[in-house]
Amino acid sequence: MVSDSIRKVAIVGGTHGNELTGVYLVQKFDRFPELLHRLSFECVTLLANPQAVVANRRYIDRDLNRSFNNEDLINLELAGYEANRAKEIAAQLADVDLIIDLHSSTANMGLTILPSSRDPFNLRLAAYLSGLHPDVRVCYGIKCNSDTPMLRSLARLGCTIEVGAVAQGVLNADLFQKTEMLVQAILDYIEAANQGNPLPVLSSMTGYQSISSVDYPRNSSGEIQAMIHPELQFRDYQPLHPGDPMFLTFTGEVIPYDGKSTVFPIFINEAAYYEKGIAMTLTERLP
Amino acid sequence: MVSDSIRKVAIVGGTHGNELTGVYLVQKFDRFPELLHRLSFECVTLLANPQAVVANRRYIDRDLNRSFNNEDLINLELAGYEANRAKEIAAQLADVDLIIDLHSSTANMGLTILPSSRDPFNLRLAAYLSGLHPDVRVCYGIKCNSDTPMLRSLARLGCTIEVGAVAQGVLNADLFQKTEMLVQAILDYIEAANQGNPLPVLSSMTGYQSISSVDYPRNSSGEIQAMIHPELQFRDYQPLHPGDPMFLTFTGEVIPYDGKSTVFPIFINEAAYYEKGIAMTLTERLP
Repeated sequence: MVSDSIRKVAIVGGTHGNELTGVYLVQKFDRFPELLHRLSFECVTLLANPQAVVANRRYIDRDLNRSFNNEDLINLELAGYEANRAKEIAAQLADVDLIIDLHSSTANMGLTILPSSRDPFNLRLAAYLSGLHPDVRVCYGIKCNSDTPMLRSLARLGCTIEVGAVAQGVLNADLFQKTEMLVQAILDYIEAANQGNPLPVLSSMTGYQSISSVDYPRNSSGEIQAMIHPELQFRDYQPLHPGDPMFLTFTGEVIPYDGKSTVFPIFINEAAYYEKGIAMTLTERLP
Repeated sequence: MVSDSIRKVAIVGGTHGNELTGVYLVQKFDRFPELLHRLSFECVTLLANPQAVVANRRYIDRDLNRSFNNEDLINLELAGYEANRAKEIAAQLADVDLIIDLHSSTANMGLTILPSSRDPFNLRLAAYLSGLHPDVRVCYGIKCNSDTPMLRSLARLGCTIEVGAVAQGVLNADLFQKTEMLVQAILDYIEAANQGNPLPVLSSMTGYQSISSVDYPRNSSGEIQAMIHPELQFRDYQPLHPGDPMFLTFTGEVIPYDGKSTVFPIFINEAAYYEKGIAMTLTERLP
């Protein structure tokens, strides 16, 4: 075993209670723990937001996956279910080297890997996963891990897996099986790396870099004035050129993309992001 | 104007707070009331469950669209937001002749018309709508209107419009526009009928009759043990033959449809029906 080996991995589902793929996959792993058994490391599971799972809602008081910045984790005055849950989870996962956080999206995200960091191990893992299925895409955030108060930030290594399109509160068998395949592939990759025999990866890989988000057009009261244009709906990771249709008002007027350069929108029409003021996230395709 | 003419029509959205098509369409009609103006009848709008709309949830305390049976409407002891709201709505719509209730589904329902009754006016209206778009399908329930405690049961005439597939909490521009087209077509049809010049309808029309519902396989604790089979997902209104794959367990075993005759499932994998114990509704195609 190599010196910087991974000793402990956490597979997390139900960070958002109505994203059922991860919820049911964690339940399956709990029923068949042998599926997670590897020789060189321990693998634990976590149902992150059980009350939200029972309620079939994203969260109870606040979005758990925005509750992990250090200020919140040390703030004993912070009230609410998720604020407490975040502290419990941070303690529980303190000795974990790598976190796999399982999510789904109403956007057509395919099998998106959102690495926790640009650690070379993570980059190589992402390249490995990219070779497994044409729907795998790797997207990097604007911020580095320590600035991003997501659950995955509790470990230096790992990723969020974001699959879609699937409605909230719905189990999609195809995406369930593909998510399980990715989890198994990650565990196999770690096992091989721990044993000093890293699995071969693609020499080149297309990645996407998130650059900004776009809100829905709103009036002064904050009410939405336009919908995602039908030609853009479900076209995540497809090029959007300056002048292409972006929104459609309720009275049928087209609002074009007014940027200067071609971008690749993702999270298009994600249900959970209406309240966050995000109609889509714009990315650049990395060379 | 003919003697049994329709004097008042209600267009209802937001009966379920996270079905945004109807919510935003009612808001559009409120902003542009001239869109609903016809010479021979009055048209009113109703946002049925405003608290659920604000919360972006199907309901607050109970499903409003199962809250309209007579026993509940006269029960002054019945507590909860929707129980009270149902009484208010029943009073408000007491003089309405025809109700159009706007819904959406995570199932691939296309543009489904669920008539409130088999009144010949309703049947002829459904036949008219069937000729407008290939995605229009007409489905009749098991029960007659008086047994069905849905909002549409408050008037003898009218229908629910159930469009999909669209995730809860998501606005889909294409389905928004098609729903608006159907509402306008219904108003035009009523106007012509009121004036004694009913619009021509298809001489024959394919309808579907709901016959039963099927729950997910569950264990003794009520936990789901299988998902909709990928070959059945989104195949609403397609024939399901005896022996065809119906469910897929989490460990990959196929559970076939064990009925004796070919059926046409609808509401396949509707998110809101997990809690109701409905994985799909089986229908027969009417000759």
